[in-house]
Amino acid sequence: MKILVINGPNINMLGIREKAIYGVETYDQLKDFIHAIGEEKKIHIEHYQSNIEGEIVTKIQKAYENVDGIVINAGAYTHYSIAIMDALKSVNIPTVEVHISNIFKREEFRHKSFIAPVCIGSICGFGMYGYKLAIDALINENSKV
Amino acid sequence: MKILVINGPNINMLGIREKAIYGVETYDQLKDFIHAIGEEKKIHIEHYQSNIEGEIVTKIQKAYENVDGIVINAGAYTHYSIAIMDALKSVNIPTVEVHISNIFKREEFRHKSFIAPVCIGSICGFGMYGYKLAIDALINENSKV
Amino acid sequence: MKILVINGPNINMLGIREKAIYGVETYDQLKDFIHAIGEEKKIHIEHYQSNIEGEIVTKIQKAYENVDGIVINAGAYTHYSIAIMDALKSVNIPTVEVHISNIFKREEFRHKSFIAPVCIGSICGFGMYGYKLAIDALINENSKV
Amino acid sequence: MKILVINGPNINMLGIREKAIYGVETYDQLKDFIHAIGEEKKIHIEHYQSNIEGEIVTKIQKAYENVDGIVINAGAYTHYSIAIMDALKSVNIPTVEVHISNIFKREEFRHKSFIAPVCIGSICGFGMYGYKLAIDALINENSKV
Amino acid sequence: MKILVINGPNINMLGIREKAIYGVETYDQLKDFIHAIGEEKKIHIEHYQSNIEGEIVTKIQKAYENVDGIVINAGAYTHYSIAIMDALKSVNIPTVEVHISNIFKREEFRHKSFIAPVCIGSICGFGMYGYKLAIDALINENSKV
Amino acid sequence: MKILVINGPNINMLGIREKAIYGVETYDQLKDFIHAIGEEKKIHIEHYQSNIEGEIVTKIQKAYENVDGIVINAGAYTHYSIAIMDALKSVNIPTVEVHISNIFKREEFRHKSFIAPVCIGSICGFGMYGYKLAIDALINENSKV
Amino acid sequence: MKILVINGPNINMLGIREKAIYGVETYDQLKDFIHAIGEEKKIHIEHYQSNIEGEIVTKIQKAYENVDGIVINAGAYTHYSIAIMDALKSVNIPTVEVHISNIFKREEFRHKSFIAPVCIGSICGFGMYGYKLAIDALINENSKV
Amino acid sequence: MKILVINGPNINMLGIREKAIYGVETYDQLKDFIHAIGEEKKIHIEHYQSNIEGEIVTKIQKAYENVDGIVINAGAYTHYSIAIMDALKSVNIPTVEVHISNIFKREEFRHKSFIAPVCIGSICGFGMYGYKLAIDALINENSKV
Amino acid sequence: MKILVINGPNINMLGIREKAIYGVETYDQLKDFIHAIGEEKKIHIEHYQSNIEGEIVTKIQKAYENVDGIVINAGAYTHYSIAIMDALKSVNIPTVEVHISNIFKREEFRHKSFIAPVCIGSICGFGMYGYKLAIDALINENSKV
Amino acid sequence: MKILVINGPNINMLGIREKAIYGVETYDQLKDFIHAIGEEKKIHIEHYQSNIEGEIVTKIQKAYENVDGIVINAGAYTHYSIAIMDALKSVNIPTVEVHISNIFKREEFRHKSFIAPVCIGSICGFGMYGYKLAIDALINENSKV
Amino acid sequence: MKILVINGPNINMLGIREKAIYGVETYDQLKDFIHAIGEEKKIHIEHYQSNIEGEIVTKIQKAYENVDGIVINAGAYTHYSIAIMDALKSVNIPTVEVHISNIFKREEFRHKSFIAPVCIGSICGFGMYGYKLAIDALINENSKV
Amino acid sequence: MKILVINGPNINMLGIREKAIYGVETYDQLKDFIHAIGEEKKIHIEHYQSNIEGEIVTKIQKAYENVDGIVINAGAYTHYSIAIMDALKSVNIPTVEVHISNIFKREEFRHKSFIAPVCIGSICGFGMYGYKLAIDALINENSKV
Repeated sequence: MKILVINGPNINMLGIREKAIYGVETYDQLKDFIHAIGEEKKIHIEHYQSNIEGEIVTKIQKAYENVDGIVINAGAYTHYSIAIMDALKSVNIPTVEVHISNIFKREEFRHKSFIAPVCIGSICGFGMYGYKLAIDALINENSKV
Repeated sequence: MKILVINGPNINMLGIREKAIYGVETYDQLKDFIHAIGEEKKIHIEHYQSNIEGEIVTKIQKAYENVDGIVINAGAYTHYSIAIMDALKSVNIPTVEVHISNIFKREEFRHKSFIAPVCIGSICGFGMYGYKLAIDALINENSKV
Repeated sequence: MKILVINGPNINMLGIREKAIYGVETYDQLKDFIHAIGEEKKIHIEHYQSNIEGEIVTKIQKAYENVDGIVINAGAYTHYSIAIMDALKSVNIPTVEVHISNIFKREEFRHKSFIAPVCIGSICGFGMYGYKLAIDALINENSKV
Repeated sequence: MKILVINGPNINMLGIREKAIYGVETYDQLKDFIHAIGEEKKIHIEHYQSNIEGEIVTKIQKAYENVDGIVINAGAYTHYSIAIMDALKSVNIPTVEVHISNIFKREEFRHKSFIAPVCIGSICGFGMYGYKLAIDALINENSKV
Repeated sequence: MKILVINGPNINMLGIREKAIYGVETYDQLKDFIHAIGEEKKIHIEHYQSNIEGEIVTKIQKAYENVDGIVINAGAYTHYSIAIMDALKSVNIPTVEVHISNIFKREEFRHKSFIAPVCIGSICGFGMYGYKLAIDALINENSKV
Repeated sequence: MKILVINGPNINMLGIREKAIYGVETYDQLKDFIHAIGEEKKIHIEHYQSNIEGEIVTKIQKAYENVDGIVINAGAYTHYSIAIMDALKSVNIPTVEVHISNIFKREEFRHKSFIAPVCIGSICGFGMYGYKLAIDALINENSKV
Repeated sequence: MKILVINGPNINMLGIREKAIYGVETYDQLKDFIHAIGEEKKIHIEHYQSNIEGEIVTKIQKAYENVDGIVINAGAYTHYSIAIMDALKSVNIPTVEVHISNIFKREEFRHKSFIAPVCIGSICGFGMYGYKLAIDALINENSKV
Repeated sequence: MKILVINGPNINMLGIREKAIYGVETYDQLKDFIHAIGEEKKIHIEHYQSNIEGEIVTKIQKAYENVDGIVINAGAYTHYSIAIMDALKSVNIPTVEVHISNIFKREEFRHKSFIAPVCIGSICGFGMYGYKLAIDALINENSKV
Repeated sequence: MKILVINGPNINMLGIREKAIYGVETYDQLKDFIHAIGEEKKIHIEHYQSNIEGEIVTKIQKAYENVDGIVINAGAYTHYSIAIMDALKSVNIPTVEVHISNIFKREEFRHKSFIAPVCIGSICGFGMYGYKLAIDALINENSKV
Repeated sequence: MKILVINGPNINMLGIREKAIYGVETYDQLKDFIHAIGEEKKIHIEHYQSNIEGEIVTKIQKAYENVDGIVINAGAYTHYSIAIMDALKSVNIPTVEVHISNIFKREEFRHKSFIAPVCIGSICGFGMYGYKLAIDALINENSKV
Repeated sequence: MKILVINGPNINMLGIREKAIYGVETYDQLKDFIHAIGEEKKIHIEHYQSNIEGEIVTKIQKAYENVDGIVINAGAYTHYSIAIMDALKSVNIPTVEVHISNIFKREEFRHKSFIAPVCIGSICGFGMYGYKLAIDALINENSKV
Repeated sequence: MKILVINGPNINMLGIREKAIYGVETYDQLKDFIHAIGEEKKIHIEHYQSNIEGEIVTKIQKAYENVDGIVINAGAYTHYSIAIMDALKSVNIPTVEVHISNIFKREEFRHKSFIAPVCIGSICGFGMYGYKLAIDALINENSKV
């Protein structure tokens, strides 16, 4: 099983960015954490980060028929990127949305997600640990097939 | 560690209710599934279901200083019960929201949650398995303290 | 054929409540009127009233596979009870919505019904007589099967 | 007693028009059905259909002091014809609104009726049979005077 | 100087229609009143009434290069007829909007006029007398040229 | 008969202010024009102008039982002064709203009037001449009593 | 004179619940405070609390012709319970709305009250003391009759 | 192949109407242009124009099983005629919407089309030439069958 | 203790103004009533009334460090005066909002208060008596310090 | 004559992406189709595709004074890219908007186009064939100069 | 060159008013600061402050043909004073809007400015220093003529 | 002191782009102007321009701990880029927003800025000169530390 983890804009600023909201753990720690999950679960996990909406679109397109599941934290693009939404619909790969912070505790404009309706499900508020839950959910989903 | 799982209105109709949305697994299977998690994780899990908003409020109030975490699927009340929202704020117990279906794929009025902003985080779309993820998240949260 | 008539909050105040809107006939007269329809049509009609949203949900759940049709006047809950809406969808029994007053002549917030979209149809404005029309409609619907 | 039944635009396409919504019975069958009700109830029923909003207005005006009740299915005009609404208020004849389909199951813009607030009451979702219910309601109303 | 007075739907019901709002004077009295103004001012006044939106459009089109001014009470069409609005813009004849009742004292939906923005000005609330004011305004406007 | 003409903020800038909208005639010409109407109609007309909302309120209060009619052009206050609206309701004197420009041709926020609903009627778009129409309307109204 | 004091959901959590908003005084202190007012004013005060919307409806219904005034703090139900609103309209007993916190300082959704429009008046922001003000207001109102 | 071209209100004023928006070519030139396309493409093209909404509805109804495609420029009715929308759905004939002007450059209320969602596609902004594109599109569509 | 009572526009019209809403008691009676409270409670009460928004702002500014509490009925300015809101925030004096009528029974635009969020609390609907309640509330608040 | 065809995000997924909406023809077929049109019309057509909003902006900027017309299908960016809108306004080249699907049959958020108001016109719903219509429209427009 | 600096309501409370937002510098310091700029730049600067909307309107009117530029901080009136907006349009003097605080960091209702659209430009968030920037901008603008 | 000036999409089209709005000065002149300010003020100014949202995000990220202040004109991204907003919050560097045109004179959608709330302040409408004001503001801010 092969899973692609996509992180959107500013996720690479973890540990620097608004610590009261995103916590003190760094982006490198997030990458290590995701890597460790792959090792533990014995699945292939590719990690990808970009600040550019269109590059995320391209990455998703390239995943077509190449990966079994996607975990996506589209960051700010979550709230307005119809392009990423369309890319996910195009490739039709089981996808789980994850957010580090609880977006429903924040500004009104962060409550809207264009990503969630094209995913299996959505997870938010659990910090880094949310990525583990998302991967568990994908594995569980995969086991149904 | 003690966890209270609260299921709101019509969750007890699982297996009967709109199967295209909620799946074929029954409410009894859900209860067994939750029970099994408790056994596996060696934590005390109490399960509670009610169709009555005010009873759910009362149940949450009684949890005050008695449980370490709450998993709540408030069902339809999710979208309008300020009373349940207030009850959760009153007791201030770490809580995780869960939904069986992906509420963001459904009617606009189901996208709004009064529960999510007073929880640690929110999980939806993974069927029964979402309860397992929610409990994992609570245990993980508990381990930080 | 077995029909369940459900009356929601404050319907039991008929004859006392805002007579300019609801008329002078009493709740007891309504119950007698419904009873008489059953006798005349030779069908079994059960009447149920509750002020509690969640009890109405439970009553609908219990009707599953037990009644052939439901007539529901959800009173004020009409306008916000997604829980009752979901209960009706869960049991999937032919249902007719009825209102004593013409809700479209009244406050804007009474124009919205969460019940109507999950019913065969909706009837309002004819006072008690609306219950007779609703039962006729259910019988007619039943005769099609 | 004399009743005028008014059918608005596209009702004359019954049996051709969107059968999944309006059913397979034809417009001629509807006319016969209405005719038969008149015979059965021994009341005079005039049937009128027009696709032209202003002609419906004129027809209602001419009913002034000539008919005892109106049954109106204004079709699409239901949702925007303030002119028909005003005509009904002008003549002040007891009127019942009827719709073949359950308009609350359909597009948001069909939930709004300019006709309902100037009628005794409103009936929708029961196909042709709704016309019978509407006439019954008018007769019942008439018997009160 | 030639003026065309156009009355829209239900204006022909004056004296019958909602007297608390429109007064007791009849439509015939309105026609006589308008006729008398023409005689007094020694101008040609043509009066036209129709319940049909499209006929009003056609009448306006025919006025092109034939009349020096239009007084229009579009009745209910005021609030939604973009077609009449466009007809008035097409012919580009000085036009005055008039309403018998004060539309700003009534339902919210009557506050919106698609006619007013394409007129010189608008007059409402003065009953029949508003037509005299409108004609005075047109004559005054005409004297400027 | 005694009429009070009230002009609100910036009406005193006529002839200077946005000539494309308000015309080239000056504020002094407006005062002369109003004065001349009084002479011609042999009625007492008092003219008042203020840029201060509360002073207009006070002026209206003082008119109580002292004038037979008010003509008011509340200028910009038209669109938000509930205080002036309330003052007019307090004194209950027949009032006509007038605007020099056609407010419906301008910005959306100028379409809303808090003054119109508490007047007999409203006149806009005819420049200075609108004041004459307003006074005519008041005289006509007065003649009915 | 007999007054019924109704407290809605989570009011029984006073002293525990969000102290920054609701203060440190406990629910027992509130009950004692209300009791003391009755003693001081020599009126009968019954106190009732429920978390269940429908039970509050029923309690209000039972007050019909049994109490002279109601003080109600409907808690979260304030903002969406049309059922409680209707119950109050049904019994038509002089009622005063009270809130411990200043609801206008809080979330937008707490600014809307379905209770206020069916009360004599409304009081908020004064903590427990608001109940005393409400009872004073009822006594004053009662003295007018 | 037989195509029906329907032009709505005020299209017959081309060459007179707002030339900055609609151009200087006349309605007669439009008719000739459409006629010439038919001759060139060797298809039967019927042209129809009406200012009356209901007549357009009737024309569409009569096209049922008589034409292979419809080109419709519903003019102002585009923005509010649910009746025309329903007529098009009733007959289920391949239809193309066309507008002479670019409606998206104009007032907000012209951006909404009730016609577009029931057509194959929509074309606007190309003046008369848009009719040629629409006919090409219908022919292309027809060639797929 | 020194209290400043501020009455906004049109409060000075009490006894004249819309008696069905504001009652028959006069403004002089209100002043006497407030004066009497001061005497009874042995506190210094200054009364101030103005129709001018900016004068109320100035009065509040002058109260800075001079009064212990403010009772304000900002009249119509309640609903739009951000200037008064800001003045109250500037001086930071304990303030209670009062309204003679129950503003929640009236037009939608009167439900919004810019004053309430910057006060301790708000009282409405009790006529003159509301001023007494407001003063009681201020005294009670003062006693806490 | 030189035309630039710009395709936005996910257009390169044609043949893979949501076939029920976009059809089975592939992106390569689209490119060939466009190429063939150029050959047939004997005009130079450059084709460009990018998933990156800012690259599309840059491409448009580079077209300044280099191309005679643009055909743009901005894909998802249509609905929110003010940057592309501004780029088109900057270069002021005759542009035609095209969409493969009928965007008015789809989600509400796809009905809004930031591209259409800065184009000559807009074409949607005809699949690949829409590109041919767009090029025809540009050629026709070009012939007018 | 002559510049008029206008400060609206509550600006005279600087140093007292909400220091977390407006800073600790006093109103006298602001006046000295503005005075010093005039001396440094060798331009005539008049400073004016009023809490009364209409007085600000009058002050602007009097500036007509007397000053070369206006710097205005309309305080709370920024957000609703169409009267001040109209006054600025009447005199047509180059004007710069300034705000001490960053209004976009504050309540939603402070994001709307009726002043900004009738100014050359707008500056906010820089405390007192914003006045210097505004004067610099006016001088720069003046140098272009 | 080191300042980073960021220009977003289409700013590089200055001198070509909509001259009536943006003026005739070219992008090269803007760069020279900014360069000259740096020389005059003896501060290091880096200039950066990109049409790509994500590249601007990256540039801001790289500024972390490397620059003392940012001047940003995010162009069209101002109105929807939550990604740039988040980047600015991540690095927490004093930032000033600048716009060449007065965005409040333009389309409604340009009035909304996601950038302004995360800046010290905002400046618009002064053409190139706004960059000078922004740099002055940053230097002034820097001098406070």
